[in-house]
Amino acid sequence: MKIHIINGPNLNLLGKREEAIYGNISFDDYLLDLKKKYSNVEFVYYQSNIEGGLINYLQEHGFDGNSVVLNAGGYTHTSIALSDTIAAISNNVIEVHISNIYSREKYRQHSLLSKNCVAVIAGLGLPGYDVAIDYFLRNK
Amino acid sequence: MKIHIINGPNLNLLGKREEAIYGNISFDDYLLDLKKKYSNVEFVYYQSNIEGGLINYLQEHGFDGNSVVLNAGGYTHTSIALSDTIAAISNNVIEVHISNIYSREKYRQHSLLSKNCVAVIAGLGLPGYDVAIDYFLRNK
Amino acid sequence: MKIHIINGPNLNLLGKREEAIYGNISFDDYLLDLKKKYSNVEFVYYQSNIEGGLINYLQEHGFDGNSVVLNAGGYTHTSIALSDTIAAISNNVIEVHISNIYSREKYRQHSLLSKNCVAVIAGLGLPGYDVAIDYFLRNK
Amino acid sequence: MKIHIINGPNLNLLGKREEAIYGNISFDDYLLDLKKKYSNVEFVYYQSNIEGGLINYLQEHGFDGNSVVLNAGGYTHTSIALSDTIAAISNNVIEVHISNIYSREKYRQHSLLSKNCVAVIAGLGLPGYDVAIDYFLRNK
Amino acid sequence: MKIHIINGPNLNLLGKREEAIYGNISFDDYLLDLKKKYSNVEFVYYQSNIEGGLINYLQEHGFDGNSVVLNAGGYTHTSIALSDTIAAISNNVIEVHISNIYSREKYRQHSLLSKNCVAVIAGLGLPGYDVAIDYFLRNK
Amino acid sequence: MKIHIINGPNLNLLGKREEAIYGNISFDDYLLDLKKKYSNVEFVYYQSNIEGGLINYLQEHGFDGNSVVLNAGGYTHTSIALSDTIAAISNNVIEVHISNIYSREKYRQHSLLSKNCVAVIAGLGLPGYDVAIDYFLRNK
Amino acid sequence: MKIHIINGPNLNLLGKREEAIYGNISFDDYLLDLKKKYSNVEFVYYQSNIEGGLINYLQEHGFDGNSVVLNAGGYTHTSIALSDTIAAISNNVIEVHISNIYSREKYRQHSLLSKNCVAVIAGLGLPGYDVAIDYFLRNK
Amino acid sequence: MKIHIINGPNLNLLGKREEAIYGNISFDDYLLDLKKKYSNVEFVYYQSNIEGGLINYLQEHGFDGNSVVLNAGGYTHTSIALSDTIAAISNNVIEVHISNIYSREKYRQHSLLSKNCVAVIAGLGLPGYDVAIDYFLRNK
Amino acid sequence: MKIHIINGPNLNLLGKREEAIYGNISFDDYLLDLKKKYSNVEFVYYQSNIEGGLINYLQEHGFDGNSVVLNAGGYTHTSIALSDTIAAISNNVIEVHISNIYSREKYRQHSLLSKNCVAVIAGLGLPGYDVAIDYFLRNK
Amino acid sequence: MKIHIINGPNLNLLGKREEAIYGNISFDDYLLDLKKKYSNVEFVYYQSNIEGGLINYLQEHGFDGNSVVLNAGGYTHTSIALSDTIAAISNNVIEVHISNIYSREKYRQHSLLSKNCVAVIAGLGLPGYDVAIDYFLRNK
Amino acid sequence: MKIHIINGPNLNLLGKREEAIYGNISFDDYLLDLKKKYSNVEFVYYQSNIEGGLINYLQEHGFDGNSVVLNAGGYTHTSIALSDTIAAISNNVIEVHISNIYSREKYRQHSLLSKNCVAVIAGLGLPGYDVAIDYFLRNK
Amino acid sequence: MKIHIINGPNLNLLGKREEAIYGNISFDDYLLDLKKKYSNVEFVYYQSNIEGGLINYLQEHGFDGNSVVLNAGGYTHTSIALSDTIAAISNNVIEVHISNIYSREKYRQHSLLSKNCVAVIAGLGLPGYDVAIDYFLRNK
Repeated sequence: MKIHIINGPNLNLLGKREEAIYGNISFDDYLLDLKKKYSNVEFVYYQSNIEGGLINYLQEHGFDGNSVVLNAGGYTHTSIALSDTIAAISNNVIEVHISNIYSREKYRQHSLLSKNCVAVIAGLGLPGYDVAIDYFLRNK
Repeated sequence: MKIHIINGPNLNLLGKREEAIYGNISFDDYLLDLKKKYSNVEFVYYQSNIEGGLINYLQEHGFDGNSVVLNAGGYTHTSIALSDTIAAISNNVIEVHISNIYSREKYRQHSLLSKNCVAVIAGLGLPGYDVAIDYFLRNK
Repeated sequence: MKIHIINGPNLNLLGKREEAIYGNISFDDYLLDLKKKYSNVEFVYYQSNIEGGLINYLQEHGFDGNSVVLNAGGYTHTSIALSDTIAAISNNVIEVHISNIYSREKYRQHSLLSKNCVAVIAGLGLPGYDVAIDYFLRNK
Repeated sequence: MKIHIINGPNLNLLGKREEAIYGNISFDDYLLDLKKKYSNVEFVYYQSNIEGGLINYLQEHGFDGNSVVLNAGGYTHTSIALSDTIAAISNNVIEVHISNIYSREKYRQHSLLSKNCVAVIAGLGLPGYDVAIDYFLRNK
Repeated sequence: MKIHIINGPNLNLLGKREEAIYGNISFDDYLLDLKKKYSNVEFVYYQSNIEGGLINYLQEHGFDGNSVVLNAGGYTHTSIALSDTIAAISNNVIEVHISNIYSREKYRQHSLLSKNCVAVIAGLGLPGYDVAIDYFLRNK
Repeated sequence: MKIHIINGPNLNLLGKREEAIYGNISFDDYLLDLKKKYSNVEFVYYQSNIEGGLINYLQEHGFDGNSVVLNAGGYTHTSIALSDTIAAISNNVIEVHISNIYSREKYRQHSLLSKNCVAVIAGLGLPGYDVAIDYFLRNK
Repeated sequence: MKIHIINGPNLNLLGKREEAIYGNISFDDYLLDLKKKYSNVEFVYYQSNIEGGLINYLQEHGFDGNSVVLNAGGYTHTSIALSDTIAAISNNVIEVHISNIYSREKYRQHSLLSKNCVAVIAGLGLPGYDVAIDYFLRNK
Repeated sequence: MKIHIINGPNLNLLGKREEAIYGNISFDDYLLDLKKKYSNVEFVYYQSNIEGGLINYLQEHGFDGNSVVLNAGGYTHTSIALSDTIAAISNNVIEVHISNIYSREKYRQHSLLSKNCVAVIAGLGLPGYDVAIDYFLRNK
Repeated sequence: MKIHIINGPNLNLLGKREEAIYGNISFDDYLLDLKKKYSNVEFVYYQSNIEGGLINYLQEHGFDGNSVVLNAGGYTHTSIALSDTIAAISNNVIEVHISNIYSREKYRQHSLLSKNCVAVIAGLGLPGYDVAIDYFLRNK
Repeated sequence: MKIHIINGPNLNLLGKREEAIYGNISFDDYLLDLKKKYSNVEFVYYQSNIEGGLINYLQEHGFDGNSVVLNAGGYTHTSIALSDTIAAISNNVIEVHISNIYSREKYRQHSLLSKNCVAVIAGLGLPGYDVAIDYFLRNK
Repeated sequence: MKIHIINGPNLNLLGKREEAIYGNISFDDYLLDLKKKYSNVEFVYYQSNIEGGLINYLQEHGFDGNSVVLNAGGYTHTSIALSDTIAAISNNVIEVHISNIYSREKYRQHSLLSKNCVAVIAGLGLPGYDVAIDYFLRNK
Repeated sequence: MKIHIINGPNLNLLGKREEAIYGNISFDDYLLDLKKKYSNVEFVYYQSNIEGGLINYLQEHGFDGNSVVLNAGGYTHTSIALSDTIAAISNNVIEVHISNIYSREKYRQHSLLSKNCVAVIAGLGLPGYDVAIDYFLRNK
């Protein structure tokens, strides 16, 4: 089984960016843990700060019959184009946010992507990704 | 370890209410599954259609040092009083929704409770409760 | 034939509350008249000031194949939970208001319940209940 | 006794317009039924697609001491002029809608006329007109 | 010198409509007074309850080099088409309201016509028409 | 093949109204050109300044199996009744605007009609009508 | 003289809930002080977390000719039903808030109750209740 | 007969401020003309750029039984205090604006004062003051 | 002990302004009563209709270690500058309103000052000032 | 003659994305048709999912004296930067949408680009591009 | 060369008001520094807490051909009258704010003055005044 | 000392884009001037039309202890992602705009970036960059 994990802008700074909100572990370290924990899952990881880069990746891999865990960062709240891509592809997508976006700034409380995703998980920290993976494993 | 699972209005109808949205398993059946799966967890289940009933329960058990999984149903979007209770108690609360509320009617897309909860999980169906429990187990 | 008549908060004060708006007949007196007029209908009457009380009643009787005449009073405008219950049950519900709510305060001009009801009748005074009953008799 | 029944734009298409919403009986057929059912009432029927035509009719007949049943169709939501006319005349007016306008598009959920009408009936289908007539008979 | 006086919907009811707001003199009587007072002015009077009737009149006479006094009644607040006509014609138009529309219902406080009129006069009662005429006499 | 071309308020002033926006050719002249260019198409032309006049025309000809090119002028933005008529008839309607309404006043940027039309063309000047005709010819 | 003191949801947690905002004295202790201070006043105290419970109490005691001091907690901002009850009863009601609600979250800055109360006191801490009592003593 | 003419901020710049909007005559010159034209009226003129200065003047002279012509300039749109003063005094006040404020910036289209004034005149240029004076003369 | 009592615009008209709302006692008379009642308090009274006058006073006396009772009248709802002054000074300020501003016009229901004041008292009439003084005496 | 055809995000999925809305022909196939139909036009085609990619292309070719047909997909509604580019270049741009965006989600009904484009065509399907090309051919 | 430096309400408290936001240097001290640094510039300094005082000053000196540096404090966000004055005078005005108003309360993020000023500088602390002066020196 | 100067979309067109707003000097020429004027500062210049390109650059250089002058062009108003990056990096950022954005279109008057920047400078033309550099030199 293969799962795409896609991170949007600024998530590559994890571990050195606003630790009070996002924690102090880098995503690379976390990814190693994931690979150990789910040894029978093939993880493909992609990060980009470019809105269209995320769209390109989703278009190229979004019809391969696998699942997608997506944290689109700041584009969550502004990108109709990305939302359209999620609607266009055939893979299922779960939207993950490390922090509880619903308890933060008003403009961060609305996601343009949610309506095209299977589910939304927010505020669990990095384990939110585990949760999405568990769900896909249970429902493959 | 003890976990409170609290359901708000209409969730007692699960399994016979709008199956396209909420599925066809009753919560009682699901609870049995949970108890089997997490045999070392003590589950305390409470359901009420009365806003103040949920508040009463949370006040009585919200200082006992355990965790709370809360699906407040329709009160999610209208109850400042319930939100105040979550802020007042010392237990951690995770907000769960069976459906993806962010892809439904506009008035269902904003939760008054989220700002006082640890995390929010929506759209995973009943397994959303599992996810919340897993999180509490990992972080006890 | 059986018809449930359900009244929400403050309607038990009818006859001694703001007579200019609501008239000076108590609902009990009016109910006696109804029973005389529709001698072959079995009326079940329920009044509660508690939102969850109305929900409980609707859940218990809302699948019995009979009809419901509902005046939810002030909860009309604030209760998503009650609206969800009306959607969840299988009985048909007609929403009745004694006064013409559309000509009163702005917050009284929008009903959260209407979208899940068969019809809405407002401003006819107590005879609005007759009208709903007539409709159910015609369409049983 | 005389009752004016006034229909606004597109109601002359009844029976061949969006049957799922408005049913498949023409208003002319329904009017024949009404005349049979209320043999001692004189019905005067007027339909116009022209906003000012409705105003003209109301001005000419609105002081004759009879009652008015009005379904202003799409002008319900946009015509301040028509609303002013209802306020200006001395006859009582009941506003009727065939469909439950409160469960339809947002712009159809607010009526500019209601504040000047005695009552509002929506969602009962064509029998909504009966209800209005019954009310006037009871209160003549 | 010729002046067009144009009245919109319900102004033909003047004198028998809501006297507290609009006074108890009919417009015909007032027009006789105007003709006496301004004996060297030729008044052309037009009233219609039909939005398009007002537009037709303005199109036909709006390029004749004379002035227009316009009280469009309820269409003041809803008619983009009428506003477009005022912009299209070459005659100058003064907007007159008998009552002080700015102290009435919110929806009556904004005029779509004002931006294409020379001036606005509201609240002076019928003498508001005198004022507009005086202005045109002074500026002919 | 027959095509209905319907123009709303003020479009009869074309050629003498705000030339910077609408150009200096009258619609009659343009219609002659159209008839020459599309010699095998029968054009039926209707213009009215009266909202209900447009509705009447559409009701009478809207079920004849032909196509409609509609420029409703100022009623585009205010007429729910006209929008309802377009939904009610069976002919296809293309909405045309001479100017680019989306770059003009805010109230001119939203059309109530578009949701019931096949397509919208704005800003091409009079050739916008050609374009709509071409489309119907290609898709007859 | 008798005064009803009514507290809404979460006020029973006073002294152990968010002390920075609400102080560290329980309401029971404060009530003892009140009784000592106003030895010639009979205090009747009622607290409920249930919206309809507050309504029930007000309906039962709201016509006894005494005064009411009401702190409805979170229901202050959401309960039209409670507001209707205050309007319906004959006793005078003063609305009290321990904290200065006008300097807190936006949704806490508007009270649905105020329009039906005699006066509003906010931000004085528990002495706000004294103040209301003083007022009633002075005006009995 | 005495009439108070009161001008607010920046109206003392008349004649040298944005001539396209306000014309090129100073108010002093215009006042001389007024005094000549209405030789039997005693004019008292007051101008201030200070909101409270206008309030002071109105309080001191607002109970003397005479009439007031008020152009409050920019305070028209922001001063609740000034609006309260107009409501408090017993003299009648007519609100005058030199330009047609309803065709200008959005924030200039709403007046806080109008609801407490007898009438509103806008867009007539300086003759708007004449009109107000004429009205008071006719109605003294 | 010294207390500053500061009144804003129009409060000097107390006793002769809209008596139904504000009562018929002048503030001077009331002040005499206060001085008798609290013989050991030194009252300093200041009233101004000028926004900046109130700011000047607060700046000059706002650091003297005494308390302030402030009724800013109409400036309550529009003055950011005054609100900034209250935040800048070191004295405590209680905001008092004679009428229940929360049951009046919408624009009177929001105070820009409250967020910088200790407490808010509204609707008690003139005794609202007593209440504020009592509070300061208890907490000096 | 040369025409630039520029497509934004997700339009490269045409033919395999939401066929009910966008049809089942790929853009490449359509482009071949265009080239055959307009054999004397040189088409330059560019597609990018990257907002800044579209901007780069427009900057490089937007001063070459040719025309541009632009379908910016999801960036239509969110990109001020792209709108600024269209304003900055000297070539004329026609905005094309395959579907009728005005009958879809609210956030898709407003285009930030339209105000800087010559014209807007929506809902004609792929022939919308033909129409734009025809216009440029007629007006070269 | 002469430059007017004008400060609005509360800026006279600089150095003793909310030091975290505004710093701890008084404006008088800073002015001495300015005079030393720009020895060939004549500075005229004016501060007032009175809105109309600022207007008076600007009217008296705003046509003298010199430049103006204006920090209007709280009036920045509420004074249409002051904005009108800036538009009316012929001198150029630069708007300066010590703090970054765009990162503070919502009501402090919009300036009514900016549209009539040459430039806006915010967040540089007191050196923001230097910057404005430098600009005028460069562009005299 | 090193300073990063970063320009967003369309600023590479400076000198040939809307000269009335942005002037006629290219940024390259201006940069040469800057380098001469500040010979002891090392300038690193980066321009991109790609939102993610700006983010990439800021992430790579934003922790190097130097300062950043940022003009993000159209992304200023739409990019939450870019705003997040500014918050995440440790370098100080000053936001510069060549034109006075606060006097332009409404959507250009709000910056998502300002809250994370040290200061904002708008309307000074290209010298705005000088000002930012001067500030950093003074505060290094």
